[in-house]
Amino acid sequence: MTDSIKRLEKEYRKFVSEGIELNMERGWPCREQLDLSMPMLDLVTSDTDLCLENDYRGYAGTAGIAPLKKLFAEVLQVTEEQIYIGGTMSTTIMYDLINKAVLFGFDGFLPWKDFPGKVKFLCPSPGYEKHFNICKTFGIEMIQIPMNDSGPDMDLVENLVKNDDSIKGIWCVPLYSNPTGIIYSDETVCRLARMQSKAADFRIMWDNAYCVHHLTDEEYRIINIIDECAKCGHPNRVFEFTSTSKITFPGGGVGVCASSVDNIKWLTRTSLLQLKSGDKINQLRHAKFFPTVQSLRDHMKKHRDIIKPKFDLVDLVLHEQLDGWDVAEWINPKGGYFINLKLLNGMARDVWQKCKDAGLSITPAGSTFPYGEDREDAYLRLAPTYPSMEELEQAMQLLCIAIKISYTEKH
Amino acid sequence: MTDSIKRLEKEYRKFVSEGIELNMERGWPCREQLDLSMPMLDLVTSDTDLCLENDYRGYAGTAGIAPLKKLFAEVLQVTEEQIYIGGTMSTTIMYDLINKAVLFGFDGFLPWKDFPGKVKFLCPSPGYEKHFNICKTFGIEMIQIPMNDSGPDMDLVENLVKNDDSIKGIWCVPLYSNPTGIIYSDETVCRLARMQSKAADFRIMWDNAYCVHHLTDEEYRIINIIDECAKCGHPNRVFEFTSTSKITFPGGGVGVCASSVDNIKWLTRTSLLQLKSGDKINQLRHAKFFPTVQSLRDHMKKHRDIIKPKFDLVDLVLHEQLDGWDVAEWINPKGGYFINLKLLNGMARDVWQKCKDAGLSITPAGSTFPYGEDREDAYLRLAPTYPSMEELEQAMQLLCIAIKISYTEKH
Repeated sequence: MTDSIKRLEKEYRKFVSEGIELNMERGWPCREQLDLSMPMLDLVTSDTDLCLENDYRGYAGTAGIAPLKKLFAEVLQVTEEQIYIGGTMSTTIMYDLINKAVLFGFDGFLPWKDFPGKVKFLCPSPGYEKHFNICKTFGIEMIQIPMNDSGPDMDLVENLVKNDDSIKGIWCVPLYSNPTGIIYSDETVCRLARMQSKAADFRIMWDNAYCVHHLTDEEYRIINIIDECAKCGHPNRVFEFTSTSKITFPGGGVGVCASSVDNIKWLTRTSLLQLKSGDKINQLRHAKFFPTVQSLRDHMKKHRDIIKPKFDLVDLVLHEQLDGWDVAEWINPKGGYFINLKLLNGMARDVWQKCKDAGLSITPAGSTFPYGEDREDAYLRLAPTYPSMEELEQAMQLLCIAIKISYTEKH
Repeated sequence: MTDSIKRLEKEYRKFVSEGIELNMERGWPCREQLDLSMPMLDLVTSDTDLCLENDYRGYAGTAGIAPLKKLFAEVLQVTEEQIYIGGTMSTTIMYDLINKAVLFGFDGFLPWKDFPGKVKFLCPSPGYEKHFNICKTFGIEMIQIPMNDSGPDMDLVENLVKNDDSIKGIWCVPLYSNPTGIIYSDETVCRLARMQSKAADFRIMWDNAYCVHHLTDEEYRIINIIDECAKCGHPNRVFEFTSTSKITFPGGGVGVCASSVDNIKWLTRTSLLQLKSGDKINQLRHAKFFPTVQSLRDHMKKHRDIIKPKFDLVDLVLHEQLDGWDVAEWINPKGGYFINLKLLNGMARDVWQKCKDAGLSITPAGSTFPYGEDREDAYLRLAPTYPSMEELEQAMQLLCIAIKISYTEKH
């Protein structure tokens, strides 16, 4: 055992003995971010006129209030008739859509539960574990699709979708992808819209969660896949999602779905019994807080001011500690919530465990893959927003020590 | 044609020519009722400390915030561990529970979709159309059960449930029943708790929607069916529901489910992906508005002051216009939202149509029965809360004219 590994192990034991508790497991906004939206809570009071449209206090109005539909229509570049605002979270809408497809089928199609054989979904990986958990919940078989710098491997996607009518959809986080941070290229978007699918009810679940969550001055924008699908003769192929969970308050925000007019009519009609209307008063709070897209953009800059230094700190410590070791690859993303760390094969689980044993929670190794199966055992998802800068510095030092020890033990 | 019928028809034509638009179709609170809860909107502002428990602004906390669970635990006479607070409406939770039972099965049981043969539900009728629509949505066969003054016909219920394992549940509105206004007797509740069911996963859907919606000084209270079921060895048999839809704001309120600790754990666990947490900030608004059960009770008295005169007006006009005609029966209920008018057989559809033609919307005849099938064609549900006293007076006069004309034409 060299002096170097002895020193690393001493540092590691120091962390263990200190009994720290650090958490960079979830993409949760930190307190300072949540504080940004506190003024929103003053925008609806007992003096506010709520007798607008129907009456925002009453039962009427299933798909959302007009001013908020207008805002999101502008953000997502669709018409107001193409917007459905449901409950508080976009995951609720995604879950519900898959539930409806399984049990009742999409508008005019066979319920997936009655499809002869197993229904399958394409899962670009690493990806978002909640998407995969929805598939798991409904017994939908997941097919891993490798991700590259411009999105999923489109040759593979096209080939699979063209030839197999049991493949009913694909999950995508097209902008600042969770967790890789990559941005889908125009070509990828167009190929997804244009490709032939053997299943007539093939659906793209387009989770545009980070559509306004930029970390640089360049406000990247994906081309409008809803329009592209319509142009290519597949108007109902895509459901797009976003929410205010990481804009205002998680849990106390609004979930949004955009699609073709027909799909939104179908979604509204089939949701009426389940959720007569979302919380229109809270929708108005949001509409008043963001009277224009520019005001939303300004608000997101304040988020960026808080979290960009955290991303830079992660990037800095990784470079300082790991440059020259040839043990890890990552990019400092231009938006979103995560940094995806690709270690040498066979290291992720071990590093995750070493961190856990010393009091640092990271998203479990494998989580970003269908069935938790990272065959290379190489990927760790880092979520830098929630901890303070001090905690993050400490967490990153610990992580790098764990990586070095793991590497040294194995090589 | 007698002079009398000519006079009635003249009055009816007068209504038609006036082009009125009256609505007593839905059990919606009126504006004055909604105004009662406006002060609630001032109870959470940018100065409010929301960093309670976890952080009410964040993702954590699936089953609801502690102070609101405490309130509803006291209202429903259960422990806080027996409460789940979900989204904004109790219908959402009911729909979701049936959805889960069909697709996944209740905790440890076969999914109903895999049950050999059709799954059935008992539907005391007349009853609440949304319950029946949930059954219809999920393809659950509905069996009509006659209602009497103390609840559903329990001899029939016991007999069916004991011998048929395809009967998986029953819908009940035990207090101020929708629409009959009756109150389940202690004996009915105990028999429901005690009875043997052939289906081990038989469930009582106990919609206690009007648990605090009294219209008289006597605050009726149903005995605690959750406790009764536990005593009788069926701890997981019942899911109880209530909401603030008709306490604060429909759509902007909170939906509540109470059950055994095991059922609530199961519901919480299986809801985590779908709805990470409800809107805890809005839950706090409610908890601050109702710091005690007494404050809730006081608030409901204000509702009563607004709507009790409407119920009395309906009762008065019906008596004034129809006494001596032997054409209709009704009770002026002691709580809830509806007056159930039982006409002579074969009249309901005709009266409903005559009202509609003259500009008065009433809940469609048949709606309060499974499949919309009121075999006697006798029942109309009157919802007096939404219109103003003036509109209600006019609506009731028109209704009574329509009833008299219909009666005269037929007899």
